[in-house]
Amino acid sequence: MKIISVVGARPNFMKIAPFIRAVEDYNKSVPPSPPHPLTPSFPDKGQIIYLFVHTGPHFHDRMSRSFFEELEIPEADINLGVGSGTHAEQVGQTMIEFEKVLRAEKPDWVVVVGDVNAILACSVTAKKEHIKCCHIEAGLRSGDMKMPEEINRLVADRISDLLLTPDLMSSENLRKEGVPEEKIRFVGNIMIDTLEANRGKAAKLEIDEIIRKNSIQEVRGAGCGVRGDFAVMTLHRPSNVDTKEILEPIVRFITEEVCKELIVIWTIHPRTRKMLETFGLFDSIFKIQNLILLEPLSYLEMLRLNMDARVMLTDSGGLQEECTVLGTPCLTLRWNTERPVTLQEHGGASVLVGNNIERIRSEYHTALEKPRMPFSPELWDGKTAERCLKAILEFKE
Amino acid sequence: MKIISVVGARPNFMKIAPFIRAVEDYNKSVPPSPPHPLTPSFPDKGQIIYLFVHTGPHFHDRMSRSFFEELEIPEADINLGVGSGTHAEQVGQTMIEFEKVLRAEKPDWVVVVGDVNAILACSVTAKKEHIKCCHIEAGLRSGDMKMPEEINRLVADRISDLLLTPDLMSSENLRKEGVPEEKIRFVGNIMIDTLEANRGKAAKLEIDEIIRKNSIQEVRGAGCGVRGDFAVMTLHRPSNVDTKEILEPIVRFITEEVCKELIVIWTIHPRTRKMLETFGLFDSIFKIQNLILLEPLSYLEMLRLNMDARVMLTDSGGLQEECTVLGTPCLTLRWNTERPVTLQEHGGASVLVGNNIERIRSEYHTALEKPRMPFSPELWDGKTAERCLKAILEFKE
Repeated sequence: MKIISVVGARPNFMKIAPFIRAVEDYNKSVPPSPPHPLTPSFPDKGQIIYLFVHTGPHFHDRMSRSFFEELEIPEADINLGVGSGTHAEQVGQTMIEFEKVLRAEKPDWVVVVGDVNAILACSVTAKKEHIKCCHIEAGLRSGDMKMPEEINRLVADRISDLLLTPDLMSSENLRKEGVPEEKIRFVGNIMIDTLEANRGKAAKLEIDEIIRKNSIQEVRGAGCGVRGDFAVMTLHRPSNVDTKEILEPIVRFITEEVCKELIVIWTIHPRTRKMLETFGLFDSIFKIQNLILLEPLSYLEMLRLNMDARVMLTDSGGLQEECTVLGTPCLTLRWNTERPVTLQEHGGASVLVGNNIERIRSEYHTALEKPRMPFSPELWDGKTAERCLKAILEFKE
Repeated sequence: MKIISVVGARPNFMKIAPFIRAVEDYNKSVPPSPPHPLTPSFPDKGQIIYLFVHTGPHFHDRMSRSFFEELEIPEADINLGVGSGTHAEQVGQTMIEFEKVLRAEKPDWVVVVGDVNAILACSVTAKKEHIKCCHIEAGLRSGDMKMPEEINRLVADRISDLLLTPDLMSSENLRKEGVPEEKIRFVGNIMIDTLEANRGKAAKLEIDEIIRKNSIQEVRGAGCGVRGDFAVMTLHRPSNVDTKEILEPIVRFITEEVCKELIVIWTIHPRTRKMLETFGLFDSIFKIQNLILLEPLSYLEMLRLNMDARVMLTDSGGLQEECTVLGTPCLTLRWNTERPVTLQEHGGASVLVGNNIERIRSEYHTALEKPRMPFSPELWDGKTAERCLKAILEFKE
């Protein structure tokens, strides 16, 4: 069996790393050739021929490189060389380049993960070439068609052959869309495999060292440590950072209220930095007492902060999930989520606060009262990648 | 309101022509400006700003030009200049070029028709730009993921805002996929608008003249007329023409059996001609008694033949539909159809015969016994385009 898996942008990396490991482990468990009798755990024969495709050019930024290194993701076998650009440029170019790979390599399966543009481009291209497609993290739905990720998810899930869901709600979403039962397999959350595999390593990092290494403020010297509780904030969505009327009140709430009682570590996404500068807000936050501004962090660094954060303020879907498993109270600065299993009403750590300051304030104070309550939804157990591969090997047409 | 409609390949042309006419008629019925009170039939104000986009370069073949002229389709406002190529090249390039148009023109609606590659490219691009998308001829399903058209339909229908269906079965298909009721409108078959508008013109054409004009055989002289009954055949799908093991028995059945008792007019698609030549079959069919080989015909010419044909043998979805309305017994050389409403069990003229010669032979003889039985499914009444436009104008978000 020949499998090609594809990664596009950075949110994909934490999701593909465990899958690559699962393929490697499987191949170690079976002799390379000739085809041998069935192994007990997997009903397929022989080693998997596996190709790892990266849509972008070689490590185009420092962050991507650090993710690859930390997560021990191997060098991509094939780089499609698709750079940044508009949605159509990215998707269109990826289709054109990926089709060449498929025609040359003729895999049995294309495996796509998450909700980046590459999953739309590569699932469509695979199905046009009559190649089976598997979507890991299928069935998530925000119901918000203004999110490009929602369109990517809808398209990939509509045409893929095998839909591997992170939770039972996602399986149910697919059933409501008329997806036949045999295409749906509930396997758990593959990103939690990465979290579980890296908890130990992250715990060894020093928070002071993370700050020193990534600070974008004036040098505070070796003594710039964090004493006591701290909050962590990340923002990157256009809906939060692209308009001054929305971004400025959030900044004021953080600087004028939260920083009065708590250290806030704000890891600043390039888009957010650009908008802060455009709106003339960047200089004003630069010297706020208790506000620590950092460059975007590596996976392990962010995991380390999350393990000790008193509260997380974020618009990232991935952090919502990690906060749930770690038990960090999480204010999700969105009006909807494709990951309802992480919400407090379902046992998770997250509460939707949109960008309404009243709501953010009220939930922030509630969060401070809360103890850390780690919660792992069903099958968020670190063994999802193995189940993904098993589902592919067991697939019957 | 500003509407952009898109056509890609030729099967789109018969479907967009009536829509363009409906927009023109609507605009004649309302004053250009200033916005005026509601008209009785349409709840919108003022004229529609309408742009007609063609994905291909200017009339890249003789056939496309004749379709445009006969159907009185205006010159496209914008040509995207996407040439032929692989699926990914066509879809990818169309996305990249269409995005530029959308960003420059900022329409309220993008309208796509049928199931060509352009509907996938343009619906995805529209939704990524937060523009409403309407799919005319939504809900058709063959269940065959090896058909590129099926993938185009699935994707366009999953993400479009307004799904206009040609028949009640298509509406039901969408319901089974969990599409909310308010997105579905049953409007009838827009291609039948074109048929009804052109019946009279087609009836005036002389069959002998059509043959003389399009013959690819040696000149038979002015006397090469059709006396009595004749069959019409068209084949173009890879599944029928790309393998010798399938194409040769069909050719033998036609030449050795059908031509013994009936004139057969075979309009030869370029792909089919190429394959006949590759398999060394072209020369052998060239001088068969009763077999008339023609270049691909214009819309009116094919309609004229269909009006008098004793039986149609085809793998075209459009001809299946036209045979139903005209009552021409139709052997559909496919194993499935996205247009079950045209099948005999639903009152239509078509029967699926795949490429099994036993089946083709048996149904051919049955067809010869049948009287011509015209049948118009519900709302196949020539007024579909008007209902399409009404649905767009009445759409509530």
